[in-house]
Amino acid sequence: MDFLARQRRLAEALERLKLDALLVTHLVNVRYLCGFTGSNGALVATPRRMTLFTDGRYAEQANAETQHARVVITRGPLLPETARALQRLRAKSVGIEAEHMAAATRAELKRLLPKSPRLRDTGGVVEQLREIKEAGEIHKIRESVLAGARLFDTALEAIRPGVRETGVAAEMEYAARRLGAEGMAFETIVAAGRRSALPHGRASSAPIPARGFVVLDWGVKLSGYCSDQTRTVHVGTPDADTRSQYTAVREAQQAAIEAVRPGVMVSEVDRAARQLLQASGLGRYFTHSTGHGVGLEIHERPRIAQDRKEPLRAGMVITIEPGVYVGGRGGVRIEDMVCVTATGYEVLTPTHKELISL
Amino acid sequence: MDFLARQRRLAEALERLKLDALLVTHLVNVRYLCGFTGSNGALVATPRRMTLFTDGRYAEQANAETQHARVVITRGPLLPETARALQRLRAKSVGIEAEHMAAATRAELKRLLPKSPRLRDTGGVVEQLREIKEAGEIHKIRESVLAGARLFDTALEAIRPGVRETGVAAEMEYAARRLGAEGMAFETIVAAGRRSALPHGRASSAPIPARGFVVLDWGVKLSGYCSDQTRTVHVGTPDADTRSQYTAVREAQQAAIEAVRPGVMVSEVDRAARQLLQASGLGRYFTHSTGHGVGLEIHERPRIAQDRKEPLRAGMVITIEPGVYVGGRGGVRIEDMVCVTATGYEVLTPTHKELISL
Repeated sequence: MDFLARQRRLAEALERLKLDALLVTHLVNVRYLCGFTGSNGALVATPRRMTLFTDGRYAEQANAETQHARVVITRGPLLPETARALQRLRAKSVGIEAEHMAAATRAELKRLLPKSPRLRDTGGVVEQLREIKEAGEIHKIRESVLAGARLFDTALEAIRPGVRETGVAAEMEYAARRLGAEGMAFETIVAAGRRSALPHGRASSAPIPARGFVVLDWGVKLSGYCSDQTRTVHVGTPDADTRSQYTAVREAQQAAIEAVRPGVMVSEVDRAARQLLQASGLGRYFTHSTGHGVGLEIHERPRIAQDRKEPLRAGMVITIEPGVYVGGRGGVRIEDMVCVTATGYEVLTPTHKELISL
Repeated sequence: MDFLARQRRLAEALERLKLDALLVTHLVNVRYLCGFTGSNGALVATPRRMTLFTDGRYAEQANAETQHARVVITRGPLLPETARALQRLRAKSVGIEAEHMAAATRAELKRLLPKSPRLRDTGGVVEQLREIKEAGEIHKIRESVLAGARLFDTALEAIRPGVRETGVAAEMEYAARRLGAEGMAFETIVAAGRRSALPHGRASSAPIPARGFVVLDWGVKLSGYCSDQTRTVHVGTPDADTRSQYTAVREAQQAAIEAVRPGVMVSEVDRAARQLLQASGLGRYFTHSTGHGVGLEIHERPRIAQDRKEPLRAGMVITIEPGVYVGGRGGVRIEDMVCVTATGYEVLTPTHKELISL
């Protein structure tokens, strides 16, 4: 991980934004900038140097993990100490991460810094840097994706009529831990039968019915990086309508994947999937956007949506996950993780997409 | 669950605070007040009525779960809709949950409501109500504690020299899922050997050594309610120092439990444990507070700490968890969940506290 390069890119961003410093309190951003993974930390970042504040519980860990930043172990809460550090900097304008800092914390910080420096709400300063993954990050994401993909076999073994959705999720999560994952990247979705029509059907105590789709949407966290994958299988022999619903989603997903390359607008990628589904009369059942970035967090920039005009850039890692949800009948979603390369795309998810009947 | 009574208590609190309404955005508080468990919701609460806002994904669920509140399904983001509702109320003063609302969201809300109503930062309004558990809640907490306690046997079977800490955690989490838990209440701590001296030693890839303490701190979430329990076992035969460290913690924990009754200051409960450890020369190794409330969240009010002057009240459910951490050697922590009753206390955690050598 090239922390120096990240810090350099942050310095450029601060200069563009005319900020003397950024108070980084979102822990994933702290980790991204200096490597510290503890659960209590704040980073005072100026264009010239970084100072990490954490408490005594993390003294050893902070010194071992932190790269290119001074480590300060505080005795009490972090906020007063970071406020003092900001005062000592004689900074005029300091950015805070307003999407992550609680309003009460912001008010407290303002009380601690009544006059100077001036606090400025910022959004997405570090997140924007995180959009483009380094080679080392893509390597880690790939390992996470490969570990996650192995859980599909676990799920296939567990799924049978009468087994609870949570039972399937339990087997997948157990397998993830045994593969060395820190845990799941989000609450595992196992949505069977009519529940497959719920785009967010996290595993419930409902039993898997004798017949119908099962949507599985899961991901692991491995060395900090998330994977995200969806497959839909069918219990019982699918009829013609069922098959054509599946095929439509599969083709829409493939079309969106093939639209991926640097310079293409994210809205175009969304449109590639949406147009195909509209052509087969299923457009109105595709009720969400096509994908999102993935990295240290499960939902990162960019959003792959019809109303977004951002271009794809090499080094982005995104999901492509169209779905068709027919209320009362069932739903299908297929999702892969895709890396934007210099010339096009690479699908990171290794699992095939034939319709499996169990 | 007596939602009407909760809403009545909130109405009293709003009148005391001279607030015309409270915008409840912390999802656990939304759930507490009206029963809705979806992942996107906001509640506009006035002393006379409640309105829940959520999006189309949760239409069915919101109508099934929500008690004594009108349900409004929004098409877009919730914030503009709740802002319009606040304007329609002609309220003068509206509280926001400033400890939970992001500074950026607060600024956005202010933009949506430039003149009226006036926004007032509040902290802990609903959390304060949640401190005292209803009989129905204590029942659910008890079930969560009993399910959680069963994982200790799973851990005892899994622990042996050479097994990774994450391996033990994996077995416990798998067992939790099989018992019907939604998941763990927090990241499972398995800290073996020298790592047992880390108060926050979440399970790592380190193998369990041939000799030493293993601190296990875990909890499950069942029907929304959390459990929290710690036991410390010893691998290999403990020597006399090791035994006396364990005994000191056990006696300190018992003393703190016996100090629990309505009207006693939380600082007194903390002191009961701390004094005993100081008397045996281990006081300086007890580096955290004695406990905390537990309910829908793993850390709730009250904090059982030396600097807190709040009295215990019947219906509170708290942890009692002193620990002694000797760097380079090892640590011991013992934790039960305790309910404050009308006349004293009841220990909810059923597991014995004899020192187990494996």
